[in-house]
Amino acid sequence: MVYNFNAGPSILPTEVFEEAAVAVLNYDNSGLSILEYGHRTPAFEGIMQEARQLIKELMHLDDNHEVLFLHGGASTQFMQVPMNLLDVKDIAAYTDTGVWAAKAIKEAKLFGKPEVVCSSKEKGYTFLPKDFAVPNDCKYLHITTNNTIYGTQWQKIPVTSNSLIADMSSDILSRELDFNAFDLIYAGAQKNIGAAGVTIVVVNKNILGKIKRNIPTMMDYRNHIAEGSMLNTPPVFAVYTCMLTLRWLKKLGGVKAIEKINNEKAALLYAEIDRNNLFTGIVEKEDRSKMNVTFVMNDKNKEAAFLQFANDNNIIGIKGHRSAGGFRASLYNAMPLSSVKLLVDLMKEFERNN
Amino acid sequence: MVYNFNAGPSILPTEVFEEAAVAVLNYDNSGLSILEYGHRTPAFEGIMQEARQLIKELMHLDDNHEVLFLHGGASTQFMQVPMNLLDVKDIAAYTDTGVWAAKAIKEAKLFGKPEVVCSSKEKGYTFLPKDFAVPNDCKYLHITTNNTIYGTQWQKIPVTSNSLIADMSSDILSRELDFNAFDLIYAGAQKNIGAAGVTIVVVNKNILGKIKRNIPTMMDYRNHIAEGSMLNTPPVFAVYTCMLTLRWLKKLGGVKAIEKINNEKAALLYAEIDRNNLFTGIVEKEDRSKMNVTFVMNDKNKEAAFLQFANDNNIIGIKGHRSAGGFRASLYNAMPLSSVKLLVDLMKEFERNN
Repeated sequence: MVYNFNAGPSILPTEVFEEAAVAVLNYDNSGLSILEYGHRTPAFEGIMQEARQLIKELMHLDDNHEVLFLHGGASTQFMQVPMNLLDVKDIAAYTDTGVWAAKAIKEAKLFGKPEVVCSSKEKGYTFLPKDFAVPNDCKYLHITTNNTIYGTQWQKIPVTSNSLIADMSSDILSRELDFNAFDLIYAGAQKNIGAAGVTIVVVNKNILGKIKRNIPTMMDYRNHIAEGSMLNTPPVFAVYTCMLTLRWLKKLGGVKAIEKINNEKAALLYAEIDRNNLFTGIVEKEDRSKMNVTFVMNDKNKEAAFLQFANDNNIIGIKGHRSAGGFRASLYNAMPLSSVKLLVDLMKEFERNN
Repeated sequence: MVYNFNAGPSILPTEVFEEAAVAVLNYDNSGLSILEYGHRTPAFEGIMQEARQLIKELMHLDDNHEVLFLHGGASTQFMQVPMNLLDVKDIAAYTDTGVWAAKAIKEAKLFGKPEVVCSSKEKGYTFLPKDFAVPNDCKYLHITTNNTIYGTQWQKIPVTSNSLIADMSSDILSRELDFNAFDLIYAGAQKNIGAAGVTIVVVNKNILGKIKRNIPTMMDYRNHIAEGSMLNTPPVFAVYTCMLTLRWLKKLGGVKAIEKINNEKAALLYAEIDRNNLFTGIVEKEDRSKMNVTFVMNDKNKEAAFLQFANDNNIIGIKGHRSAGGFRASLYNAMPLSSVKLLVDLMKEFERNN
C-alpha cells in the first residue's frame, strides 16, 4: 500500500481504478476496450452525457449553466476565457494570488485589458488579499479559488456585482458553494474529478457572443455547447474516468458529504502542524487550504530526514513545490481520512525521535 | 471476439490493452495506478521521453525535427498551424480534399490568406487533384495525407519547393515516407498511435519564430519544445498508451514492416470489392486509401442486410460516414490481416446468398 499525497495528477477512488482497468480490457462486457470505442457510439455518447449530467447535479446548476469537457488543461482556459469574453479595450479584474493566477493575467493581456486588483506576491503568495476594489466597468472578476502551490484557499468567495470567473482546478467539488453565482468555472480534471487530459468548463451561456472578435472554431465555447462537448474527438478515456469518479461522489452523498470529510482531514493535519513543535504552517491561518496543506520544519536541516522517514513508511508526494519549499500534503476528495491519520502519526513519531 | 473496423477511436494492439489495464491498477509494480502518477515524476518523464524518442526513431527524423505530444486534437492544429506560421498578409496554399481539409482552410482565414490551390469537392471528394500550381510566395503547402471519410490517400506526396505541412491523422506511421521532407506534421493519436486525447506534432524548429503575432503561451510550439511537451499537465494516460503502441510497432519491425502488412490487408479487401458483383469502390483507384476502404453496394436496398450480416458475425464499425454513405472498413496498423480475411469471407458468403 502506497499513500499518495501528490498535488496532481493525484489519487482517485480505488473503485475508479478498478472499474477503469476492467474497461480498458473489456468495457461493459462488449468484448471491446473502452480505448477503441468510437466517440459517436451510443455507449460513449451515454458516458459523456452522464458525466455532464452528474456535474450539473452535484453542483446544483441552473439551466443557464452549461457543462463542457474540453481539451487543453486549465492553461488553455487562461487564453480561452479572455478570447471569448473581452474585446481589446475591455477591462477585466484579476486577483494575483499565485503563479497560476499570474499566468492567467499574462494571457488576458493578449485579448483585453486585465487589471490586477490585488496581489499577495510580495509575501510569497502566503495569504489572500481581502480589501480590494473591482472597477464597475470591468467585464469580470477572475479568481483562483485554491492556490495549489502555496496552499491558500478563499474560505469566503469575494462578492462582486461583476461577472465572477474562477479557476477551480484544485478544489472543484470539494466544498459546497453557490456555483450558479459564477458565470464561468474551469478546472483541470486531474485533482478532484478524473485522469489528466480533460478540462471541465461550466459556463453561463448568457455571457457568450457579446464581443466582436472572430474566435477560432475550437476556442469558441458556443461551438462546444452546440455539439455537446463532441466538437471533435474528445479524450474518451479521461472523460470515462471522470464519469466514474462523479458516480462515486454522488453515491457518497455528493459535495455536502465530501466537504464534511475534507474538513475533518484538513482539521486533523493542521491541528498536528500547530501542536507539533517541529513544524509550522506556511500560510495565514484564515486562508489555509483544505486541499493542499503546506508546512515547513522549523529546523530546515531536518526536512530531508522527515521526507525520508515518510517515504520509508510508503507516504509519497509530500515534498513542497520548489517555489514554496518544505512540505505539501494534498488532501483531494479521494484521499481517505486514514491516510491523513497515518501522516499525522508519523509526524508525532518523528517528533518523539527528534 | 469482436472485430472492430471503427474509423477512430479505433482498434489498438491487444498487448497495449493488456499492459494499459495492468498499469491502471498497478503501474510497474509501484503500488500506484498510472492515473495517479504526477507528470513530474521520473516514471512519467521517462514515458514521455521514450514516446517522443520512439516517434523520432520510427520516422527517422533529423535533429531539426522536434516531436511534441499536445492537447486539443488535429482540430486545434487547424488553428495552431497558421497562428504560428502566418502573418495576416501571408499566403498559404491549401488542398481541399475533404471535410477536414476544408476545416483547416476555414481556421487559416483567421490568421493569414489561405489559397485553395485545388479541390475535389465537386466530385464528393472521391479523388485527389494532381494538376495544381502552388504560388511561389506562399508560406507553406498544406495537405491531408489520408482522407478518413472518403477513403482517399495521396499515394505520391505532392512535391513542392515550399514548406510542406500535413495532417496525417489517419495514416501516420502506416507507410514509409520521407518524414524529414515535411516541415510540420500533425495527427490525432486515436487511429494509429494510441488512445484519444493526445495529438502528435512533428515540427522543423527552423520554421518557427518568423512572424510578428503575439502567440498565446499554450499555442506557441516553441514553448512546448522548450518544456519537452510538459508545458502544462499532459494527458498522462493517453501518452502512455502511445508509448506502448510505439514500442509494439518498433518490435514488429517499424514502419517498413507495418507498411507491408497494411499493403496486404488493403490489397485483399480491394480485390474482393473489385471481384464481387455486389460491391463497388467509392473512390478513384489510384487514390484509394490503405487505411480507410470505402465501398457501396450496387443495390442500395441490400446495404442494411449486409450491415446486419456483418454485425451478426461480430464485425462492427463498417457503416460509412453519413457524407459518403455505404461502408467504410478502417484497416489501421493494429488491425490484423485475419480480421480483413473474415470480412472478405463474409462478402463472398453474402454474394452466394444473394
